Amino acid sequence: MQRTLTGELRPQLGRPTELGARVRLAGWLHHQRRLARLTFVLLRDRDGLAQIVVECAETIEEIGRLLPETVLEVEATVAESEQAPGGIELRDPVFTVLSEPAESPPIELRRPVLKEQLPTLLDHASVALRHPRQRAAFEIAAASVAGYRAALDRLGFVEIQTPKIVATATEGGANVFRLDYFGRPAYLAQSPQFFKQVMVGVFERVYEVGPVFRAEPHDTSRHLAEYVSLDAELGFIGDHFDVMRVLREAIAGMVEGIRERAPGAAELLGVELPVVPDEIPWVHFADTGVEDVDLSPADERRLCEEHGTELLFVTGYPMAKRPFYTHPDPERPEHSNSFDLLFRGLELVTGGQRLHRYGDYLSALAVRGLSPEPYEGYLQAFRYGMPPHGGFAIGLERWVARLTGAKNIREVTLFPRDLNRLTP
Amino acid sequence: MQRTLTGELRPQLGRPTELGARVRLAGWLHHQRRLARLTFVLLRDRDGLAQIVVECAETIEEIGRLLPETVLEVEATVAESEQAPGGIELRDPVFTVLSEPAESPPIELRRPVLKEQLPTLLDHASVALRHPRQRAAFEIAAASVAGYRAALDRLGFVEIQTPKIVATATEGGANVFRLDYFGRPAYLAQSPQFFKQVMVGVFERVYEVGPVFRAEPHDTSRHLAEYVSLDAELGFIGDHFDVMRVLREAIAGMVEGIRERAPGAAELLGVELPVVPDEIPWVHFADTGVEDVDLSPADERRLCEEHGTELLFVTGYPMAKRPFYTHPDPERPEHSNSFDLLFRGLELVTGGQRLHRYGDYLSALAVRGLSPEPYEGYLQAFRYGMPPHGGFAIGLERWVARLTGAKNIREVTLFPRDLNRLTP
Repeated sequence: MQRTLTGELRPQLGRPTELGARVRLAGWLHHQRRLARLTFVLLRDRDGLAQIVVECAETIEEIGRLLPETVLEVEATVAESEQAPGGIELRDPVFTVLSEPAESPPIELRRPVLKEQLPTLLDHASVALRHPRQRAAFEIAAASVAGYRAALDRLGFVEIQTPKIVATATEGGANVFRLDYFGRPAYLAQSPQFFKQVMVGVFERVYEVGPVFRAEPHDTSRHLAEYVSLDAELGFIGDHFDVMRVLREAIAGMVEGIRERAPGAAELLGVELPVVPDEIPWVHFADTGVEDVDLSPADERRLCEEHGTELLFVTGYPMAKRPFYTHPDPERPEHSNSFDLLFRGLELVTGGQRLHRYGDYLSALAVRGLSPEPYEGYLQAFRYGMPPHGGFAIGLERWVARLTGAKNIREVTLFPRDLNRLTP
Repeated sequence: MQRTLTGELRPQLGRPTELGARVRLAGWLHHQRRLARLTFVLLRDRDGLAQIVVECAETIEEIGRLLPETVLEVEATVAESEQAPGGIELRDPVFTVLSEPAESPPIELRRPVLKEQLPTLLDHASVALRHPRQRAAFEIAAASVAGYRAALDRLGFVEIQTPKIVATATEGGANVFRLDYFGRPAYLAQSPQFFKQVMVGVFERVYEVGPVFRAEPHDTSRHLAEYVSLDAELGFIGDHFDVMRVLREAIAGMVEGIRERAPGAAELLGVELPVVPDEIPWVHFADTGVEDVDLSPADERRLCEEHGTELLFVTGYPMAKRPFYTHPDPERPEHSNSFDLLFRGLELVTGGQRLHRYGDYLSALAVRGLSPEPYEGYLQAFRYGMPPHGGFAIGLERWVARLTGAKNIREVTLFPRDLNRLTP
C-alpha cells in the first residue's frame, strides 16, 4: 500500500483522502494521551500531525510501552472527527515499529510551543528541530531562497558557485578565519564579492547562494561566524538605483516564494509577509539627521518609523564607512553610490555601485595604504575592461529572523556557529 | 532606448527584431576585422556575438584605436546579411565607450577555440572565462543545478544549508583542512553527510547544493580541494534501491535542466545529453569480476562498455571500503547496501543506505576503534529515533566534465583550488 502523508488527510489542503479508506502512514510517535478506555496517538511526519484513536486494549498496551520518537508505520481507517486536527482522525490502527529510540528525548516535543531555553534547543538541535514550529523557520528559509532564484532567473541572471578558500581577505583583514592550506596560509571567504564582480565580465548578471564566514569576536544576538548570503551582481547599470530595482524584484520574489511554497509554515509562526511596493522608498544618508558616518540600530528603527514603511532604502552612505571597491557619488564624492535596505527597522541588505576602472582601483587601494599585489586575480578583471556594475548581499538568517520575529538569530540558523559554539 | 541583447537579433531563437529598426546594444569589443573600406566589429554580450559593419571613415579610425575588451554601447540599424551570425548584422553604428581597459588581454578571445594552455587560462580566469566556449560549461553547470533542484522539489524534498565549519572530520581524519576557530581547532566539512542525515529526522527528504572541501594531496586531472556537491538524503526507504530511484529522477532532472535552460551552451560544446532510462541498469559488485574491494578506473570503463550503457549502477560494494555509517546488506553482511553510479565509464555518484539504529552506530565506531564522543551531536539523531534512510552525493564539476568531454576537471571548475593553486 502506497504511503499517505498526514497532509493528504486534510481536505482543506485540496488533497482529500476518502472517508472509510484504509491508509498507510509513517512517521514519529509525537505524543500519546491515555484516557480510561482509549489512547490518542499523535503521529508526526514531514507534513504535520495525524491523530490516531486506539481502542483495542492490546494495542493500547503495546503502544504504551513505546518511547516518544519511535518511528512507526500505521495502517488505519480514515474517519471524520470534529476534535482532530483538520477534522480527520484515523481508527482501528495496526502499528509496525520501524525504528526504536534508545531513550526518551531531552526536549518535550509534544508541547505546542517548546519551553526549553535556546542553549538547550541548540545543544539538542537534532531532536529540537523536529518540532513543527522549529522546523517551520527552515521551510520559510528554503522557500525564500527558491523565490530569490526564481526572480533573478527571470531577469536573466546566471547562478554561480565560487571558492570559499581564498588567498586574500575579501572585506579587509579583520574577522577572517585562517586556514592551513597544504602548509600555506589561506582564508575563508568573507563574501563572494571579488568573484561575483569578476563574473559580471563573463555573464553580466550573476547570483550566488552560499556560506560566508566572519570571525566575529562579538557574542551578540545578531552575529554569526557562518551564515548564508544571497549575493547578486549586475553590469551595464546607470548607478546604484538600477541595483536597487533588481533588489526590489529579489525581495518580492522571496515573499512570493514563501506564499507559494511555505504558506503553512508562515501561518504556524504567525508571519505577516511584507507588501513590497513597486518602488521601495528611499532616503539619502545626508537627510537622515545622523551626524556620524554610519547608522546606529536606533537610527535604523527611527527611520523606518518616521517613513512609516517596512522597507526603506538609505542611500549615499559616507565613503569613509564603505569598502574600497565602492563607487563614489560623482556629484558628492564624500558620499557613495551605495545603499542599505532596512527591513522592519533593521539593516537586511548592503549594496551599491562598484568601481569599474582599473585606475580607480589602484587609487582606492593606494589611499588605504594597501598593496595591489594580493588583489592581482581580482584586478585583472578591471584591467581588461569592465562595465559599470553593482550588486548586493542579503543575509538569509537575518531575513527569516525579521519575518518570524525571532529575538536571536540562532533560533533561525541551522546549527549556528559563533564565538562559543562549534557543535552540533 | 531600451537595450537589445544580441540573442534578440536572431529570428531563429524566436526573438525577432524588426529589420530596419534602430537598436541599442551594449557589450565588449570582442574583435575587429579591418578591410580596405570597412571594418567588421564583433560585439560580445551575455547572449553571444553581433556583427557590426562600420563604413564611416571617421568611426573606423575611432574604433581602430580601441583595445579588445573595451566596453561599448552602440546604436545601429538591423539589417539582413547572409554572412553574419544568425543572418543579421548591424549597420550605421554610433559607438559610445563605457569603459576602457588598461591594456590588451593576454588571452586571444577572438579565436573560436582558445589556443592557450590550461595553466594560462586558469591564471587569467577573469578574462579567459569571457570566451563563449569557456563560459558555456558554467551555463551547463547552472542549468544542471536548477534541474536537480526542480526534480527533488517535485518529490517533496526541502533544501537546506548546513555549516561548513565543523568540530569533527566527517569522512575520516585524512584529507581534512584544519582551521583556527577563535583559538580552537576546527575543520572544513568534507561533506554535509552528518547534517543531512540529522535533517532526515526533521524533513524526511532534504537536499543541499554547496561546497565541500578535501585536502587532496594528489595533483591529478580529476581531484579538487574544493568542489560543489549535490547532496540528497531521504527517510522511510526499504533499502538502497529506493535511493537509486530518486537519484534516477535527479539525473533526469539535470538533463532536462540543460535541455531547457542551456541548449545553446550544450550545442556550442557539442554536448550529447544522455538518455536516462526509466530504470538505470545495475550490477552487483560480486558479479563484476573484480577481486579487489574497490573498482579501478579501468574496471569502471570496462563495466560501462560490457553493459553497453552510459549510466550503470554498481551495488553492494564491500563494507571494507565504505564509511562507518554504511548499512550492510542483511543477506550478505560483508557487502553493503551501497552503490556508485558510473557515467560514461567514470564514477559520478556515491550513495547508499545508512545505519539508522543508535546501537549500530556505537558498534560501527567501536569496530573501527573510534570513540563516539566527537560524534555526539550526530549520534543524538539516532538515539532519539531515526527511520531507515539513505542518500547520495553528485560531484557537479565531474558531471559537467563528463558531459563536455573535458580532459581536466579544472576546465569546468570556476576558479579551481588544488594542491598548487589558490588563486585567482
